[in-house]
Amino acid sequence: MKLTFSPASPFARKVRIAAIELGLIDRIGFAPVTVAPGQPNDEYSQINPVKKLPALILDNGEVIVDSYVIVEYLDELAGGGKLVPASGAARWRVKSDHSMLQGMLDSMLLCRYEKMVRPEPLRWQAWTDDHWSRAWNGMARFEQDADMLARPLDIAQITLICVLGYADFRFADCGWRKAYPKLDAFHEKMLGRPSVKISVPPPA
Amino acid sequence: MKLTFSPASPFARKVRIAAIELGLIDRIGFAPVTVAPGQPNDEYSQINPVKKLPALILDNGEVIVDSYVIVEYLDELAGGGKLVPASGAARWRVKSDHSMLQGMLDSMLLCRYEKMVRPEPLRWQAWTDDHWSRAWNGMARFEQDADMLARPLDIAQITLICVLGYADFRFADCGWRKAYPKLDAFHEKMLGRPSVKISVPPPA
Repeated sequence: MKLTFSPASPFARKVRIAAIELGLIDRIGFAPVTVAPGQPNDEYSQINPVKKLPALILDNGEVIVDSYVIVEYLDELAGGGKLVPASGAARWRVKSDHSMLQGMLDSMLLCRYEKMVRPEPLRWQAWTDDHWSRAWNGMARFEQDADMLARPLDIAQITLICVLGYADFRFADCGWRKAYPKLDAFHEKMLGRPSVKISVPPPA
Repeated sequence: MKLTFSPASPFARKVRIAAIELGLIDRIGFAPVTVAPGQPNDEYSQINPVKKLPALILDNGEVIVDSYVIVEYLDELAGGGKLVPASGAARWRVKSDHSMLQGMLDSMLLCRYEKMVRPEPLRWQAWTDDHWSRAWNGMARFEQDADMLARPLDIAQITLICVLGYADFRFADCGWRKAYPKLDAFHEKMLGRPSVKISVPPPA
């Protein structure tokens, strides 16, 4: 199977970390793809009409999207219940935490596009402020979530790593470490995992 | 349990249709909430920091997001495997189809915000064109998917209904019925279900 990939994509990073943790990384080929808002990519639109990374292309040609569904698929391949609890309240907590973190990443990418991709005279500060506040309020939410920061590795934690890594990568001056010392300690601890360390985005 | 809701939200509509189809609608209270890009809503940000609708608030105070996770939760409450196949290739196909459709809705909302919410001098046509093409290419993708249009009701089909209903609601002149006659026939057939008919968005 083959994963469409960019080293700058936090969503692709999520799948890469998960694949390493699940022991499946050697079964996945990585296919570099460039997508950017405002620029067509007709070839990739045939694979994923919403033009997002990553997509997992199975050997029979079937395409699995999005990053979360790919992780659930890999988790099942690895036996199930590894990065997504198989049942009970823990399952819904992890899935719901993941969705919030995914929404935070979506908002951070919208901020990035607004500040770096959209032509300068067309930028709207209230849009950036709103979306940044969603990411920032989300960090505040998880700073207070002692269970999230201490439990065994799961897909929500992996996505939190990707949120914080993306903040370092694209919003280096935002000051999240100072504002959220518990997230800083969590992130430092997670960097001890080879999967996390090897997937840190390249210097911007 | 209580669902934060707006009649204009296609994501809230998805949950509403699912809850009716699963026979759970009478167990859910609806809490109207207004969210708009560029406008803070501090009260709702406490419930969902990414400020999106809908969220399901359980009786014990736990919050479940996003719309897809809520549907999976309700599906499990209803016995499981009703709107999301419980296993096998069908499970991954439905989940992957759903993710594409969710991305199409995200893009349609970005088009709507660009054209109606962002101050007029700050609009960027290439952004709107790109995101509209994702929705449009996605419709083309499902127009050709005979399995999707014929199989028993599932969450991907419900989301396709919400995509087409949102196109009618916010992009009435886009001409999807003419371009995609199989989607038109699918949508007409689905309007025979009370859950679909009752949840059509109010006139814009």
